[in-house]
Order: sequence, then structure tokens, then C-alpha cells
Amino acid sequence: SRSIDLAVIPGDGIGQEVVAQGLKVLNAVLPQDVKLETKEYDLGAQRWHRTGETLPDAELEALRNHDAILLGAIGDPSVPSGVLERGLLLKLRFAFDHFINLRPSKLFPNTATPLAGRPDIDFVVVREGTEGPYTGNGGSLRTGTPAEVATEVSVNTAYGVERVVRDAFERAAARPRKKLTLVHKNNVLVYAGHLWKNTFDKVAAEYPQVSTDYLHVDAATIFFVTQPERFDVIVTDNLFGDILTDLAAAVTGGIGLAASGNINPTGAFPSMFEPVHGSAPDIAGQGKADPTATVLSVALLLRHLGYEAEAVRIEDAVSADLAERDGAAAARTTDQIGDALAVRVAS
Amino acid sequence: SRSIDLAVIPGDGIGQEVVAQGLKVLNAVLPQDVKLETKEYDLGAQRWHRTGETLPDAELEALRNHDAILLGAIGDPSVPSGVLERGLLLKLRFAFDHFINLRPSKLFPNTATPLAGRPDIDFVVVREGTEGPYTGNGGSLRTGTPAEVATEVSVNTAYGVERVVRDAFERAAARPRKKLTLVHKNNVLVYAGHLWKNTFDKVAAEYPQVSTDYLHVDAATIFFVTQPERFDVIVTDNLFGDILTDLAAAVTGGIGLAASGNINPTGAFPSMFEPVHGSAPDIAGQGKADPTATVLSVALLLRHLGYEAEAVRIEDAVSADLAERDGAAAARTTDQIGDALAVRVAS
Ligand SMILES: CC(C)[C@H](C(=O)O)[C@@H](O)C(=O)O
Ligand SMILES: CC(C)[C@H](C(=O)O)[C@@H](O)C(=O)O
Repeated sequence: SRSIDLAVIPGDGIGQEVVAQGLKVLNAVLPQDVKLETKEYDLGAQRWHRTGETLPDAELEALRNHDAILLGAIGDPSVPSGVLERGLLLKLRFAFDHFINLRPSKLFPNTATPLAGRPDIDFVVVREGTEGPYTGNGGSLRTGTPAEVATEVSVNTAYGVERVVRDAFERAAARPRKKLTLVHKNNVLVYAGHLWKNTFDKVAAEYPQVSTDYLHVDAATIFFVTQPERFDVIVTDNLFGDILTDLAAAVTGGIGLAASGNINPTGAFPSMFEPVHGSAPDIAGQGKADPTATVLSVALLLRHLGYEAEAVRIEDAVSADLAERDGAAAARTTDQIGDALAVRVAS
Repeated sequence: SRSIDLAVIPGDGIGQEVVAQGLKVLNAVLPQDVKLETKEYDLGAQRWHRTGETLPDAELEALRNHDAILLGAIGDPSVPSGVLERGLLLKLRFAFDHFINLRPSKLFPNTATPLAGRPDIDFVVVREGTEGPYTGNGGSLRTGTPAEVATEVSVNTAYGVERVVRDAFERAAARPRKKLTLVHKNNVLVYAGHLWKNTFDKVAAEYPQVSTDYLHVDAATIFFVTQPERFDVIVTDNLFGDILTDLAAAVTGGIGLAASGNINPTGAFPSMFEPVHGSAPDIAGQGKADPTATVLSVALLLRHLGYEAEAVRIEDAVSADLAERDGAAAARTTDQIGDALAVRVAS
């Protein structure tokens, strides 16, 4: 009999609320014969305030033994910026070698986009997850004095770039449009840029069926708002991917719908699924958060674990739910949206 | 009697065409008693193909003695990416210590924006111009092998950050709304982020009349498309400023209208004014390029040299020209737009 052993990190702010709905829908969609076990981990701002810990080694070890991780949101204004991001969220992504940060962007029917004309948006950003300016390399000299020098080092390896580029070509080859765009800034960041571009061109030769394109990151932001329909799959570095996927979320109906997977495709470590949005402390505890992004992250989780039919059922349920809601439905609570989606996937 | 000694670098592609219109409008707006001298510098792709040179020392020295520089656009697909950008454009910005990269964004009446609802956009990005990931620090080890490591180092100094932050507070204090937003990514780039945030907070104490805000760069892109009216002045690092100002141009009617100034406010070196757009080789030589961004850059140039009334005349002329154009006018040639603006500023 089949089973899923899931680690759950609700985290901070609305993280708690949206994760509850994600689990509700997961329970509803899973076939009877699949045994779901969940274990909750108390990590985030409260834990840090209480104990000073972000992610102790024992918990990192324990997390490692689950099939996957569902995470709500990490971060709170009461904690100095960077402490939880680096000490918990990024620590997990790096420790579990989540080199694929997968972020699909789709303009669902009937959702609000700030773009006039409602372009047809349906692309996936494959963001590198373990290198670039996110490695924590860097430092500060003469900190706090008028002579301070602070550096941040973007680290890029052929090993790290090639594996994410290959993954992106595979994903592009499996989609109807078969188009892959590399986004970088190789006219300024020439060392990293050459490595990315040369690797991209080398791997492209193995995928003649995939059409390719290159855009500087600044130009890419223009096309995100003027011609988003031109994109199919995008591969890019950690920081550019961070920036572009927030913009992508904004143009496809908002951060309340954007799902993501931090994936280690080799299976050596558990992959982690989380909404792109943050902990939104301003609306936490009020039942106002849209759990859809978390529910869609659960779909990515199921797909990663081989439950393709169930993943599709969730995505179709979200589509139908959004298509049928009306103005009044915008006022549904977190719980009501979760209930509606659970009902849909169960039927 | 007054005079302006202007260096002109038309550069590549549409650079030639738009600079011609910029000079036309400049000639038309200047009072009779101001003597305008221009000297053209042959720099860019053709020069590089012919001689292998990007910016020889003798020309850098010669450029230094002008009051200001007007630049069209640099870059051509026939030149390896980075050669002209680093060897010419960035070399000028760094050699002449252009630490203020000033990029106003305004949604003019009657211009096309991809945003529904035509929000009221009128902000200025003060982009740092001499530090960050643009310094060329970095390198590549075992280049071209499967063991390659490529790095890019973002260099940030208290000296460099404080001067641009101060400039931004001055600009914010002089505007009606008096609001300044710092954009960075201090939850991940903690060393540079702390330097930027601490400097910002320190200088803020001297400007109690300016209201302040902080946004991560990813979140900032969301507000650029959902709530651009919230911004007044933005101060940010070199790379974030590059990305955000292309996005700003896109939401305010396109890169054909976005002006910029690379400014050294101390006057120690000539400042340089250029449209944000590139050389657009696909439409070069066809009279299709919109010279408005260059004309607006001429306005920034005049303001920098103390010709405030003339700068305003140009900006008003552009406003009026855009407000009065109709669908048919979208088909005006580069030359016709330049003529129309020259007539307006002269009268
Ligand atoms: C919270 C932060 C560290 C994180 C990132 O920068 O990756 C977030 O913005 C994201 O996109 O998941
Ligand atoms: C051409 C390139 C080097 C330049 C930059 O990145 O600064 C351009 O994009 C700009 O914004 O002026």
C-alpha cells in the first residue's frame, strides 16, 4: 500500500492558515489506499524568539527523512531581516540541494490582472536554487564606519548551471510550445553570464526540438508586462528568478495564486513546496489569506511524488473555482476557499 | 556670454537617428545668447570592428573637457556581449564617477501603458551608478571545463552608498510628496543590505520632512504594476535600478519615452545623458525610432547645466506633443517627431 510521509512547516503569519487548507485539500484528493502521515515542525519567528534557534541540526536531520515538506511562510518584522530567511528557509533549500526552484505562472480565468487586455499567460520559471548571489558568500569590512566595504559574491559553477539548464530543457521539450528562454545579464555580469550562456548553448544542441531565446533580465521585465504570452519556459539564476517570479505572480492575478516547488529531482533529499507569498503579518489570523497558492503548491508536491492525476485534479479544481467565483466570492474566508477546493477535488 | 561645449556620442543602431533629433531640439530651445558647440565622437560597434578600440585613453581625456555628453545608444549583435557595454558605456560611467543614474518615470497623457486603469505614475529612480555588481569584480576559474567556477562580486562602500542616498533624500525633499523608498534585498544580501539600510536610516534622521519606506526588490516589482502611484523617489543599487527602470519604462508607455542622466553632481567630471533604450538594430536606419527619450534626456542635460526654464520647455513640449497625437501620428517618422518638438520648444 502506498504512503506519503509529509513534514509540515506552517511557519509565520498566514503560513499557519494557508497550510491548514493545503492539508485539507491534500486529504480530500488522495485515494483511500494512500496513507498520509504528517509531522508538524515548530520553526519560524516564535521559535526563534523563544529559543534563539532557527533550524537546529537535529530537526534538519529529522526533516531529511520525510518524503516531502510543505511550508507555509517564513518571516516576521519582529525578527531582524535575514535571520529566518538565511537561517531557516535558505538553509533548507541549500541543505537539501533544491537546485530546481519551480514557479509556474498562469493567468486563470476570471482573475484580476493589472494588465490591460488580459494576455494569455502560461509559463514556468525554472529558477536555480543553490547558487548565484544566494550562497551567503560575502562580508563586511570596517562595518558601521565611514570606511565600510560590503561585498556579496555570486557563485556559479558549471555543475550547478548545467543541471538546472538540463532540467529546463527537459521541461520545455515536454510542453506543447517547446520554447526555452534564458534570462541573465551577460553584457554586464560577463563571467557568470558567459558560463550560463555557453552552458545553455551547449545543452541546446542536444534538444533541437526546443526553440531557444536569450533576454537580459531588464528587457525580460518589459516583456513580462507587454508580451507575457511569448514565454513558455524560462531558466534563470537564483536572484533574477526571485525578482521575475514576483513580477510574474503580480501579472497573473497576484501573489495569492503563485505556487512553487524547491525540488531536488534526484530524490536524494526531500523536496519542499511553498507558496511564493510571504507571511503577510498584516492580515494574519483574520481568515483573509487566499490559500490557493498553497493548494497549488500541494499539486506540485503530488506531481513530484508521482501522483499526476491528483495534481491535475487540484489544478482543475482551482481553475473551476476561480472561473465560477463572482465579486461577492472575493470576500470568502481562507477556510471557505479551502472547503470549496476540498469539495471539488473529492468529487 | 554663455556657452555649452557638448560631446556627442551617437553610437550604434538608432543612436545616430535619435541623437540628431535631440540636437535639433536642443538648438531650437537654447536662447540666442548661448553658444552651443558640439563635437562628435566616433565610438561604438563600427569603430570596434574597424580598429578593435572601444574607448582609447586619448578620447577619454578629450571627453573629460566637455561640459556634458549626449549619448545615443551602444551595442550591436555583431560584437560579443559585454565588449562595448563594459569597454565603452560602463567605462564612461565609472571613469567620470557618474554615481547618480537618474531615471524619471512618468505616464504622459495619451500614451499606451500595458496597465489597466492608467494609474497616475510620476516617480524618479535614483540608481547608484558606480558600485554594486557593475564593478567588473569577479572572474572565472577552469573556464570552459565541467569544473568551472564563475563569480561576480557586488562591491558596496559606505562612501558610495551614502552619497547616492543623500542625493535621493535631497531630491525627495524638493518634491511635493516628499517620499523616498529604498529598494534592496536585505533579507538575502545581508552584508550589502545592512550597509544600504543602515545608511538610509542614518541619513533619514536628517530629513524628518521626508517619509520613508523599504521594499525588497521582488516586492517592488509587484507594486510597479499594481500600485505604481505609491512611488515618489526610489533609491536603489546599480543592478536593481537597471531592472526596475526598464520595468518602469514599460509601464509608462515604453522604452521610447524613458530618459536618463548619468550624473556626477560635484561637477568634477562631465555628466552624460542618454535614453534608457538600446540601439535597436532591428529598426535602425528606417526612421522608425521614437526620439522622445533622447529629447527628454536633453531636458535632463539642460537642467543639470542650470537651464531649468529650457528643460521645462522641452518637457512641456513632449507632454503637449503626446497629448495631441492621434492614432495616425503613431506612424510619424523619427524626423517628424523631432521637427514637431523643435517647433514647440521654439515658440
Ligand atoms: C524570503 C526570501 C528569502 C525568498 C527568496 O528570496 O528566495 C522569497 O522571496 C522567495 O522568492 O521565495
Ligand atoms: C547596456 C547596459 C550595460 C546598461 C546597464 O545595464 O546599465 C543598460 O541596460 C542601461 O540600463 O543603461
